[in-house]
Amino acid sequence: MKVSIMGASGFVGGELLRLLLRHPSVEIANISSREYAGEFIHRAHPHLRGVSNLQFISYDLERIVSNSDLVFTSLPLKASLDAVPRLASAGVKVIDMSPAYRLPKAEDFQLHYSMVHPDQQLLSHFAYGLPELYRASIASSNLVANPGCMALTSILALAPFTELMDDEASLIIDAKVGSSGSGSKPSPAGMHAIRYGTVRPYKLGNHRHGSEVRTFLRSRDKGGVDVLFSAHAVNMVRGILVTLYITAKEPIAAKDVWQRLRGAYGNEHFIRLVKDKLGSFKLPDPKLSIGSNFCDIGFELEPDGKHLMVVAALDNLMKGAAGNAVQCLNVMGGYPESSGLDLVPVFPV
Amino acid sequence: MKVSIMGASGFVGGELLRLLLRHPSVEIANISSREYAGEFIHRAHPHLRGVSNLQFISYDLERIVSNSDLVFTSLPLKASLDAVPRLASAGVKVIDMSPAYRLPKAEDFQLHYSMVHPDQQLLSHFAYGLPELYRASIASSNLVANPGCMALTSILALAPFTELMDDEASLIIDAKVGSSGSGSKPSPAGMHAIRYGTVRPYKLGNHRHGSEVRTFLRSRDKGGVDVLFSAHAVNMVRGILVTLYITAKEPIAAKDVWQRLRGAYGNEHFIRLVKDKLGSFKLPDPKLSIGSNFCDIGFELEPDGKHLMVVAALDNLMKGAAGNAVQCLNVMGGYPESSGLDLVPVFPV
Amino acid sequence: MKVSIMGASGFVGGELLRLLLRHPSVEIANISSREYAGEFIHRAHPHLRGVSNLQFISYDLERIVSNSDLVFTSLPLKASLDAVPRLASAGVKVIDMSPAYRLPKAEDFQLHYSMVHPDQQLLSHFAYGLPELYRASIASSNLVANPGCMALTSILALAPFTELMDDEASLIIDAKVGSSGSGSKPSPAGMHAIRYGTVRPYKLGNHRHGSEVRTFLRSRDKGGVDVLFSAHAVNMVRGILVTLYITAKEPIAAKDVWQRLRGAYGNEHFIRLVKDKLGSFKLPDPKLSIGSNFCDIGFELEPDGKHLMVVAALDNLMKGAAGNAVQCLNVMGGYPESSGLDLVPVFPV
Amino acid sequence: MKVSIMGASGFVGGELLRLLLRHPSVEIANISSREYAGEFIHRAHPHLRGVSNLQFISYDLERIVSNSDLVFTSLPLKASLDAVPRLASAGVKVIDMSPAYRLPKAEDFQLHYSMVHPDQQLLSHFAYGLPELYRASIASSNLVANPGCMALTSILALAPFTELMDDEASLIIDAKVGSSGSGSKPSPAGMHAIRYGTVRPYKLGNHRHGSEVRTFLRSRDKGGVDVLFSAHAVNMVRGILVTLYITAKEPIAAKDVWQRLRGAYGNEHFIRLVKDKLGSFKLPDPKLSIGSNFCDIGFELEPDGKHLMVVAALDNLMKGAAGNAVQCLNVMGGYPESSGLDLVPVFPV
Repeated sequence: MKVSIMGASGFVGGELLRLLLRHPSVEIANISSREYAGEFIHRAHPHLRGVSNLQFISYDLERIVSNSDLVFTSLPLKASLDAVPRLASAGVKVIDMSPAYRLPKAEDFQLHYSMVHPDQQLLSHFAYGLPELYRASIASSNLVANPGCMALTSILALAPFTELMDDEASLIIDAKVGSSGSGSKPSPAGMHAIRYGTVRPYKLGNHRHGSEVRTFLRSRDKGGVDVLFSAHAVNMVRGILVTLYITAKEPIAAKDVWQRLRGAYGNEHFIRLVKDKLGSFKLPDPKLSIGSNFCDIGFELEPDGKHLMVVAALDNLMKGAAGNAVQCLNVMGGYPESSGLDLVPVFPV
Repeated sequence: MKVSIMGASGFVGGELLRLLLRHPSVEIANISSREYAGEFIHRAHPHLRGVSNLQFISYDLERIVSNSDLVFTSLPLKASLDAVPRLASAGVKVIDMSPAYRLPKAEDFQLHYSMVHPDQQLLSHFAYGLPELYRASIASSNLVANPGCMALTSILALAPFTELMDDEASLIIDAKVGSSGSGSKPSPAGMHAIRYGTVRPYKLGNHRHGSEVRTFLRSRDKGGVDVLFSAHAVNMVRGILVTLYITAKEPIAAKDVWQRLRGAYGNEHFIRLVKDKLGSFKLPDPKLSIGSNFCDIGFELEPDGKHLMVVAALDNLMKGAAGNAVQCLNVMGGYPESSGLDLVPVFPV
Repeated sequence: MKVSIMGASGFVGGELLRLLLRHPSVEIANISSREYAGEFIHRAHPHLRGVSNLQFISYDLERIVSNSDLVFTSLPLKASLDAVPRLASAGVKVIDMSPAYRLPKAEDFQLHYSMVHPDQQLLSHFAYGLPELYRASIASSNLVANPGCMALTSILALAPFTELMDDEASLIIDAKVGSSGSGSKPSPAGMHAIRYGTVRPYKLGNHRHGSEVRTFLRSRDKGGVDVLFSAHAVNMVRGILVTLYITAKEPIAAKDVWQRLRGAYGNEHFIRLVKDKLGSFKLPDPKLSIGSNFCDIGFELEPDGKHLMVVAALDNLMKGAAGNAVQCLNVMGGYPESSGLDLVPVFPV
Repeated sequence: MKVSIMGASGFVGGELLRLLLRHPSVEIANISSREYAGEFIHRAHPHLRGVSNLQFISYDLERIVSNSDLVFTSLPLKASLDAVPRLASAGVKVIDMSPAYRLPKAEDFQLHYSMVHPDQQLLSHFAYGLPELYRASIASSNLVANPGCMALTSILALAPFTELMDDEASLIIDAKVGSSGSGSKPSPAGMHAIRYGTVRPYKLGNHRHGSEVRTFLRSRDKGGVDVLFSAHAVNMVRGILVTLYITAKEPIAAKDVWQRLRGAYGNEHFIRLVKDKLGSFKLPDPKLSIGSNFCDIGFELEPDGKHLMVVAALDNLMKGAAGNAVQCLNVMGGYPESSGLDLVPVFPV
């Protein structure tokens, strides 16, 4: 499959390149970047020196359309809203990494992005790119919206348990994220001396990734559940951990929780269930999946059986972004789902 | 005042020394350590080289009693349970840094420490060492239990809002803590290569500091509220941030929240209210109070007025331990409450 | 003494404020900042919230001159070259934190800053602000150039040993520095995700701070010694460690090294000699002086007695910048040299 | 090829497993660990959960000999000295990861390990496992000593330049290393709160890896050159950067340096030459090779042409240990040298 990446100079672009350069069924057609057009790949991605001699091209949609079967649009919101319709109408498959096509409901989009979605029609043709839950619709779609990294982590943690949720109680999602999730653009708040050693809460309660979780809950007839989604920036580069506080309508037992987890993910290549009595890592920790496409899920259940805490951890640039997107590509292309993704975590790092 | 520290070789002992060596009304009588008896202070606390030439003595209770007005017991649980009664019966004031006298209710102690409290009688004479809430009882007591670091942070965040809590909803406390909170004793899980870069959830739901919060809620007639207290180890040495998810029984407005915060803490020297629209630090972050005795408190209120998120941040060795304990000493000794504690945060670090 | 700070919104300005706000003999007159004029101090220095309600003024030289006995110019090079002559001619004492007046030799300045120094005349009236070596000239001068942070560290490590240096051998200085040394202005290379975890060599051999060391060597008749000064950015916010590789013309013994160190610094308040056989910190480490004005010096001597390695460590914003500058103020003002500087290191952090 | 790992529970063992589990020509026969015998692999290596279900066996040499073509001995010094002769005499190929067989000269071994080498005879049959320099002898040997991580990095940086070195001048090697190089055994100095944020010099001048460099220099008739090898622990988990200060006997030009580097490494798969005028990474930085087998080399030459600074950077667990060892296996087994090693660096991390 001939694949291009638009907006290939950011962190997600770099991670897509790390994966696609070694993917057995992919040939990279073009990589575009306004800033680095004409430059070699290592100019934006110094770690790829000696790995590839690709050069960035400019934002040349005609050229990209002409030689690509699939395009990853790893662009800012507005650039995606501009490029995706043109790629779609040219018949090219698209996996969009931006938030442009993640929220099917007009109000949700407007709430977070302060604009009316310009193409509600196209939006309805997008599959939500979470293979563990929507494999079939991804396989049959040409247009995939790659989920927000914290939304994806949360939905994977939540999915086995929606049925037993108490509609009256709030769902609390407390997320902790590394700095690579904020992108590579310089900012005062992102400077090492300022960002290092912080635990910086932001978007308490109403982070936009919460709306993706709400969309998911609606799809499970749990649209009435309040979702409080809070993010905290912590001192690491890669990684997300989400802690979900779920209230059950009826008391449940630990074996029910296990059963649901195994039922949902027992055959999933990239989901690991982690709940141990021994060792330094008894529950999921993003440190255990750096560089890999794993999402680890574990839990704790209160003795009353009504309060269930689910934790999920992953590498935000992999299963939280590029890895998951390549998994979608595999589903769309009919390749083995772990094709190009069978990477062992790098530990310790 | 002549002051001694038993168990002075750990991180809390080191921080007490940093403060007491510069305290205008304190003379350090003895510092004891089994491991470092006979050694100079910089052997255990290399940063104090050139600051003090004190020497550790062994665990010599007679000597300590004979020349101390007040003793900080910075000892493991069982050592505290042994030393404190003897100090108390000798009429020496005690500020206990261990968890030995924090939980007045026998079941709570037994739950977390798997033993019956050996001296329930003495326990009842202890004041809970949180000056902002219990100034009077600390002032009139000879025995003070310094709170658990995350409990203290949480209770300060919670106190202004107990009245408006919905008894039916759970109180969620999601804490993020640095490595100095785990003490200096070597362990596999604490090694730099293993502990660095983690977000490691532990004691999800039932951390022992949750029981201190429950004790506090009972004192406010909110004993029926479920408390889920979860801790997460993150990649920093000093610092705690707690995120509290509070459900209000009736909708409230942001100005009510401000009013309650200002009412509770408007005159408190060590509490800063942080909620800003600009800058890199819009809400509390432990990075802003390193080395100081400040506790920063901020909040976010959902539009429905029923979901209130309160965040509080501090330096766990200062306001979370030694700084707060010296504040208690000041209250007990009748000194200005900021005596020896008027330290400006070190930033950035 | 009435003191103002021009350019008070950067990291060095913030550290000067941390010190001066608690200095017993200093009253802060004005703090200026182009960016923050009219704003409260915590807007630029969030850690100072609740510590001070000072407001920044604009760059108003008249006003500053009218009410200041001494001004810290914590400005970029060109702004210092503009402001300092005007302050000097108005009779105000100046401690300049920029590199504008550190290098007395015209060629050196031109080499590093690609411009001819505009006021060679004024330059000759500056004392080099290193109290341990130039106390007398600082005391009698109205104009002080605060040294470059790595230069200062290196010169303190080197000073006791210049006499015994082999003129034919090179002096190698290998420096490791934290991110706060690069200032607070956003840059791609300084972003957390990029700067975190690096060991980034820069200015190998010809860092500008090397020229300050060369200037010092000339003053000791060792101008012929080649100096290779290399800097490496490492993963911390505060701290400098320099490793000096010195070749002796004649073999020396460890006791000679000790004698020289004690002779030079035995009575210095802020220099600690660190060379231990036990413990986790056998030699200087910047981690041991964070927040304090200490410079730690230690050494290793090869069995041949000809190769001496000296290491020195300090907090770059304290003894490496603001702390040292306040020490200069104390010397200039006739105050005890540790006035406002008697801060105990914060450890661990 | 059937391969076993003795001492497979440490960091190097874990990294060997990460590589060998994906190596196309290797089948893992046995992995042994005294501590984890009988346990699943994820007990020691939590990141390998879901990747492999191997179990550790005890130290059962018979069993290992019976089913292995090649054994990695990733053991402490004395355990290697015990196991290797028995493996060798049984005709099994050995790649020893310990320092037991790295130093051919008896005095060197004795100096650093305070014991006489027990098997000088066997020692002489070992190839030094640095494929870029000793490919042929590795290919023809059954016994390979994997180099010390900092020695390997230094020798790769040095090799192109030995010819032009001034015999009278010292070679200075200043190394900066991450915490994973110290192994996983708990120690006070290695705890996160103590090790975090340090720049801790150790073994100034006489680190044991210096003796490997001296051995190499003797092989190039440069045995007279003094080598000062100093190590500094810095705040990262993976990574080494060495800065070499080389004095040339005659002035050289930058193009000569390039020529030598290209001549030595132009065809090497795992060596990248890094010297750039643009970007955040102008010279080698270990951050650019995390998880990969690359060693990056760059340089700076003083205008006098006599002082050459060479820097080299790599991932200490990869090219500095396990990756290099698998490269040796590939050479010994006649496989493509990048077999199982064609991993793209993970960046940023």
